[in-house]
Amino acid sequence: MPASPIRKLVPYAEAAKKRGVEVIHLNIGQPDIKTPKAALDAVRQAPIEVLEYSRSEGNESYRVKLAQYYAGHGIRVEPGQILVTTGGSEALSIVMGCIADPGDEIIIPEPFYANYNGFAIANGVKVIPIASDISDNFALPPIETFESYITSRTRAILLCNPGNPTGYLYSQEEIRKLADLVKKHNLFLIADEVYREFAYDGKQHYSVLREPGMDMHAIMVDSVSKRYSMCGARIGCMVSRNPDLMQAALKFAQARLSPPTLAQIASEAALDTPPEYFEEVIGEYTARRDLLLEELSKIPGIRIARPQGAFYCMVELPVKDADHFAQWLLEEFHWKGATVMVAPAAGFYATPGLGSREVRIAYVLEQDLLRKAVRILREALKNYPG
Amino acid sequence: MPASPIRKLVPYAEAAKKRGVEVIHLNIGQPDIKTPKAALDAVRQAPIEVLEYSRSEGNESYRVKLAQYYAGHGIRVEPGQILVTTGGSEALSIVMGCIADPGDEIIIPEPFYANYNGFAIANGVKVIPIASDISDNFALPPIETFESYITSRTRAILLCNPGNPTGYLYSQEEIRKLADLVKKHNLFLIADEVYREFAYDGKQHYSVLREPGMDMHAIMVDSVSKRYSMCGARIGCMVSRNPDLMQAALKFAQARLSPPTLAQIASEAALDTPPEYFEEVIGEYTARRDLLLEELSKIPGIRIARPQGAFYCMVELPVKDADHFAQWLLEEFHWKGATVMVAPAAGFYATPGLGSREVRIAYVLEQDLLRKAVRILREALKNYPG
Repeated sequence: MPASPIRKLVPYAEAAKKRGVEVIHLNIGQPDIKTPKAALDAVRQAPIEVLEYSRSEGNESYRVKLAQYYAGHGIRVEPGQILVTTGGSEALSIVMGCIADPGDEIIIPEPFYANYNGFAIANGVKVIPIASDISDNFALPPIETFESYITSRTRAILLCNPGNPTGYLYSQEEIRKLADLVKKHNLFLIADEVYREFAYDGKQHYSVLREPGMDMHAIMVDSVSKRYSMCGARIGCMVSRNPDLMQAALKFAQARLSPPTLAQIASEAALDTPPEYFEEVIGEYTARRDLLLEELSKIPGIRIARPQGAFYCMVELPVKDADHFAQWLLEEFHWKGATVMVAPAAGFYATPGLGSREVRIAYVLEQDLLRKAVRILREALKNYPG
Repeated sequence: MPASPIRKLVPYAEAAKKRGVEVIHLNIGQPDIKTPKAALDAVRQAPIEVLEYSRSEGNESYRVKLAQYYAGHGIRVEPGQILVTTGGSEALSIVMGCIADPGDEIIIPEPFYANYNGFAIANGVKVIPIASDISDNFALPPIETFESYITSRTRAILLCNPGNPTGYLYSQEEIRKLADLVKKHNLFLIADEVYREFAYDGKQHYSVLREPGMDMHAIMVDSVSKRYSMCGARIGCMVSRNPDLMQAALKFAQARLSPPTLAQIASEAALDTPPEYFEEVIGEYTARRDLLLEELSKIPGIRIARPQGAFYCMVELPVKDADHFAQWLLEEFHWKGATVMVAPAAGFYATPGLGSREVRIAYVLEQDLLRKAVRILREALKNYPG
């Protein structure tokens, strides 16, 4: 398995901290937003005497409430069409195990979330990347390109919407084009929608499950991690109206017995989070994004993909090798005692050579810290010898 | 993937309950013992504001305490030799992913825990069963038999010790024989030791990690599920002193980000459980086992494997087809308004035809209920037309 693009830098960050340098993390997707109190309180107050297994498919009460939550987002699904998983990670892993045999192919627009590679390798699945480009904010590549990559081994097209690491929000039209294509070739369209709520500028997220005629083809992967700032819960789900697929997924789920019980209690309670929580969170992320874009625009020679969702921003730097630059930032540079850690983007591409000048910035920091971080980046680029 | 031997019966049990028949569950391994209060209190009192990811390998503080716990059981390991997983299930799945390529073989004495099949299938691994026998309580088959099954594709021998479903506790001598064999053929010896504490009659559990000279070969899988009656936590671990193996396992762990945070807090606190908890629990299970054996011995024509560990008892019934009998118990029979659900043992065998007259009984019920359940079984066998 490949090492994650960020992990390689961790020892350098630790060494910098040991030298007394403050390291501001622009590299991680761990939100600093507080977890809804109701979610944590539900666990604190749960009258548990024996911490039992839940059902393999997840607690019935949780799935009923999840179906209601989806209905509120225009997605009509039954509780029986939801399989609760140990994070979105397990949902993706189960999906790949269900739909593909070793050697089968899944097409993914790149750059993409690096762990897709891990799940693919673990399941013997071949990832077929199709490059999207920073110059148009990583919009969907031409549908003809997708079609030209379809072979007899292709099983699915996988999207992250809104995108990690791109911040791109796919439009209804783009989803529709993909839907038509997967129907024509009898493939699955898998959408990782864990950032659903994080859509900015008044844009609406369009779920693959809202697209008509896709009952046999659409698979949605979800998670509470980002939505409720509870990454450590490890609760996600897989949603599909395809009964054969859900039956196969249940067998994988039964082999691992059940998703975590305590975290399901928290996740169920989190569904009662009032809309104001999200309004506040979205407001905060929008302000951070705007600040980030404004500050970044002061740096000469860079290109930015304007994010309309999630909380990541892809930036092309005026350097030859962003990997080297990221390491140099930690090893050699500091400005007023501080430096920044960014995620070099090459690790988000499957095609060698692509993204070598790009980095991903996660704007999950308070605005003052974010401003300082970009200032450090600007000073660093002035001083970088690479 | 195959359906679990128990799942097939669930609809019949539900139908029986709908008819007003009390169904006593002898089929499940969900302990009725209370979870240690300290474990649940630790979660209730944890000052969490943001429910963050833990480290992929598990919280450092938990792994340090786990190493101390193992030291108390004569097992010397460093925290860095422990990978915290989402249940013993994930540990087994990661182990198989690390040590085997699709088509590789793992030898397992049968009957064995049915979910081993699921993890093997998901990883493309071929299970090679070697039959053990109820007539000698499912002791280790002759070591020559193991050796005769080793091929160029063999990667490991997998044991459950004490055994689910057999209740068999492997002796130090048996472990040593296997250790010599895996060293000779450069294989791994994987021991699922989740029932470590549940050893009766004064016998001591002998861990595969206590066997000298096995650093490169021994892999131990563990879980808090049974030990602390917290199956729903979904916390286990994989332990090995083989650095290459642990490095590979970490990559699988990184792809799925982290084990559940809340449950790790509970599991760490559970390690402070005083020895009296286990003395009480072991005393209770011993009493249940003795009662079970005594009551079962009143049934004519049955054979019993005397359990010395875990909380399962394999019983050969005077019936042709235990699958049919188990279904009949739920569909057709009741005694004073109650019937029992047992786990037909054929599902624990990989070799077709084996175990067709056997059932597994889990003695995780209070003694009065256990007595009643065996009485129902006795009456049922008198009336069974099969």
